[in-house]
Amino acid sequence: MARARAAVKRAGGRTLSAGRWKVTSRVGFVVGLGLLFLVPGMLLATLVEWGSSTSDNEVALGLGALVTLAAGALLVTFTHLDEDMPPASVFAAVAWTWIGSSLAGALPLWFSGELGSFDNALFESVSGYTATGSTVLSPIEGVGRGVLMWRQIIQWYGGMGMVVLAVTILPFLGVGGLSLITAEAPGPTSDRLAPRVSSTARRLWALYGGITAAVAVALMIAGLSLYDAVAHAFTTASTGGFSPYDHSIGHFDSVGVEAVIIVGMLVCGASFTLHWRAVSGNPRAYGQSSEFRMYLLVILVAATLTTVLNWLYDISDLANSVRNGIFNAATLGTSTGYGNASGANPGGDFAMWTPGAQALLLPLMVMGGMTGSTAGGLKVLRAQVMAKYMRVGLLRVKHPQVVARVKLGRAALTEPVLQRVAGLVALYAFTAFAGAIVLSMMGQDLITSSSGTISALGNMGPALGDAGPTSNFLVFTRPARAVLMSLMLIGRLEFFAVFLVVVAAYERGRRATRVRLRR
Amino acid sequence: MARARAAVKRAGGRTLSAGRWKVTSRVGFVVGLGLLFLVPGMLLATLVEWGSSTSDNEVALGLGALVTLAAGALLVTFTHLDEDMPPASVFAAVAWTWIGSSLAGALPLWFSGELGSFDNALFESVSGYTATGSTVLSPIEGVGRGVLMWRQIIQWYGGMGMVVLAVTILPFLGVGGLSLITAEAPGPTSDRLAPRVSSTARRLWALYGGITAAVAVALMIAGLSLYDAVAHAFTTASTGGFSPYDHSIGHFDSVGVEAVIIVGMLVCGASFTLHWRAVSGNPRAYGQSSEFRMYLLVILVAATLTTVLNWLYDISDLANSVRNGIFNAATLGTSTGYGNASGANPGGDFAMWTPGAQALLLPLMVMGGMTGSTAGGLKVLRAQVMAKYMRVGLLRVKHPQVVARVKLGRAALTEPVLQRVAGLVALYAFTAFAGAIVLSMMGQDLITSSSGTISALGNMGPALGDAGPTSNFLVFTRPARAVLMSLMLIGRLEFFAVFLVVVAAYERGRRATRVRLRR
Repeated sequence: MARARAAVKRAGGRTLSAGRWKVTSRVGFVVGLGLLFLVPGMLLATLVEWGSSTSDNEVALGLGALVTLAAGALLVTFTHLDEDMPPASVFAAVAWTWIGSSLAGALPLWFSGELGSFDNALFESVSGYTATGSTVLSPIEGVGRGVLMWRQIIQWYGGMGMVVLAVTILPFLGVGGLSLITAEAPGPTSDRLAPRVSSTARRLWALYGGITAAVAVALMIAGLSLYDAVAHAFTTASTGGFSPYDHSIGHFDSVGVEAVIIVGMLVCGASFTLHWRAVSGNPRAYGQSSEFRMYLLVILVAATLTTVLNWLYDISDLANSVRNGIFNAATLGTSTGYGNASGANPGGDFAMWTPGAQALLLPLMVMGGMTGSTAGGLKVLRAQVMAKYMRVGLLRVKHPQVVARVKLGRAALTEPVLQRVAGLVALYAFTAFAGAIVLSMMGQDLITSSSGTISALGNMGPALGDAGPTSNFLVFTRPARAVLMSLMLIGRLEFFAVFLVVVAAYERGRRATRVRLRR
Repeated sequence: MARARAAVKRAGGRTLSAGRWKVTSRVGFVVGLGLLFLVPGMLLATLVEWGSSTSDNEVALGLGALVTLAAGALLVTFTHLDEDMPPASVFAAVAWTWIGSSLAGALPLWFSGELGSFDNALFESVSGYTATGSTVLSPIEGVGRGVLMWRQIIQWYGGMGMVVLAVTILPFLGVGGLSLITAEAPGPTSDRLAPRVSSTARRLWALYGGITAAVAVALMIAGLSLYDAVAHAFTTASTGGFSPYDHSIGHFDSVGVEAVIIVGMLVCGASFTLHWRAVSGNPRAYGQSSEFRMYLLVILVAATLTTVLNWLYDISDLANSVRNGIFNAATLGTSTGYGNASGANPGGDFAMWTPGAQALLLPLMVMGGMTGSTAGGLKVLRAQVMAKYMRVGLLRVKHPQVVARVKLGRAALTEPVLQRVAGLVALYAFTAFAGAIVLSMMGQDLITSSSGTISALGNMGPALGDAGPTSNFLVFTRPARAVLMSLMLIGRLEFFAVFLVVVAAYERGRRATRVRLRR
């Protein structure tokens, strides 16, 4: 950490007068920084492994840390940032940081030999950094404690990256209408990007770390061991959903633990911009955010209806129906993906629910959490924008000549916002169709392919069909898992960063396009 | 017919000075006219039944015609049109015409006793008028020839109504961005609605009738009997998909018949505005329409890929793979819903295809045919508009400050167009989720519920799962079939007409809404 911070300072001082031995590479420098950040986590996992008597992967984990440290140090030493970062470079740097971190994160898993081949380790690592939570481990519990803790830490890092990305970078670049959130709830970065990122990031991480610590303490009070509490605090704060146990949260069969995790997931599936304003002395920000109200409302409605259905159809008794309804609505509505089914509470597994109750979960899976959170999915805000236009379309039926001005909270929805949201929704639909087609061509049935695509795109974790909540992603073939990894990254980076490569190629190819751009 | 035309003239002359014994009811008058139009078709079916020696439903069919004639005559006699038709009234008249026709169309089916209860007859009638083609008849072939011919005629009437609605009424009202088609390919009604509807409608019907006759003649040349040729010409021209045979087009196992039907479906799934221009001496209109090019391209790509997959995976030999690929891409890409599977060609049933080939059909099912055609679905044009905005969104990544002007062919996509298209896409997604949730709550599994919803909304016919192409819609419970009927009407009337009731209630309830409307 000290080294990384020193590197930032050094680079900051030398943006204009870098030594001759340095290569100008914005991407290289940012990726290098990202790798250095991972080293403390790897060392923590190594320590856990060293303290564990059931397995001996200390060397593997330590070696992973060493390679990552070396690669990161080389990159930050021999590259430097350019004076300015055009948006395309920011996206490229973000995308490559996720990819580089995934590769580095896979090293300890691969060296340990616990996951078999490198591609399995990479799948687990990508699923971790994107806070998806799909796993190829089966069974999970045979694996050493240090390696399992590293999986949890990967998700925590992924969530940390997402908080910065979602609150500081994406809204500034206006991706998919996310600039709205600054208008909806002005956060710490409503003006300029570059000089603010590092200071804002530090404060956001303090907030993220604080929430993680609070969840860990609450879990210990609810009866978990230090290891279990910390492991699950990591993946609750990141709304990731990995667990060191095959039965996920169901392993504990504890209403107290589930209550803590529900609250943790709901907090981290909500906007960190709002949390920021709340800790800065304005807790009323929550009530003023129409997205926050809708986010809670949707989860509450899904929880209530599934509770009633599960109770009516005798899936569980009333108490467990309430518990399972709230838990599953929260875990899917925040794209976390934990399960709470256990031998004593089999009704926690939504694959056992009636089709009607399962169908109620579908909109949650597509929508995901709030903008500016660690959650995945299309985001509540974008669904609200589309709903507003649906309403305008309906009103137009009676008043075809009117021009409608649409507002969301205090923010006017202008044409650029609508273009961006509509563009992202179209991208989502197109990618979902393409993903389902490609996966099903690789041999999966339609429901497994399409739910696997939605789950990966929304960084959810479990899917339906063969890849349901009690199964794992080994049901997909190796090439299909490569597709799923791409979908996870595409979904995590709000589509645009990943498609940048496509755009760059496209722009070179067709300068004289019918889509005319003018200032 | 003569009587109906007389009624039009009488009403036309009396809009301002109606007798005292007349009630001013735009909806009543239009519904009455619609009913009178049905009478000749009912009489034709009665004649067919009378000439058939296998069943004796002449009285039932004739009675249906009599009741319909009486109801229609009463309505046009005792109501008259108002001076002007505000858009909301147009929508209401259209929606009630579909509902009234469905009720009247169900009468002969019900009186014959061949379908059992009235709700079955109504389902068949709604499925017919909306040109959907889902059936509750099982088996179909046990039913009398006159009743079966009436089913075919219902779809033809539905297609006739749709041609007028799609070419003259909806674009004028700008529903869901449909005003675009006038810009894309200026049709006969780019200026004023009311005075043009009747003359335009007459010409469009001549075109529609001509296509129907051409398909019937071609089918007879391909070897079908007069009855079979006419019956299938009716449901090809309307892209409806009903057939008097359990195995649909597969009954004939004839490549020639299938070729004729493929061409017929492709013609009627394309814009009648284009056809209009072509017969008016401008056949180049087809090439100038970007929607037409995309429509053919999408079907061609799906046909090619499914052909290759079916051949590779030994579903059929090469010749039959080509045949089945093209037939199924055309039948689903035009929302017709015919099947061509037979004992000699089992690979025509797409339920037997590999998941990858099935997945390729999904986008076709959602998208449907062109605007201004008899096909259902979201329409190619709307998918193109969303794709344009996807492209703009991607280009914005590199140029965040630019304002993008987007064009489709010669038409600029302005904010109102985008608002309408985005609104309709949002309505579609919302209705699809709601439909899947409601149907699955009524006991169907997820894949049957969601594919049944998509099929009904897109006026397709067959679904997947329990309601697949070789099954029928009796798998749904009675209340579920009521939901499906509503979805068919919602989809057929481009959502807005049906939601008008909701809007009217909404507007009364919330005049002081945050969505501000200004002239």
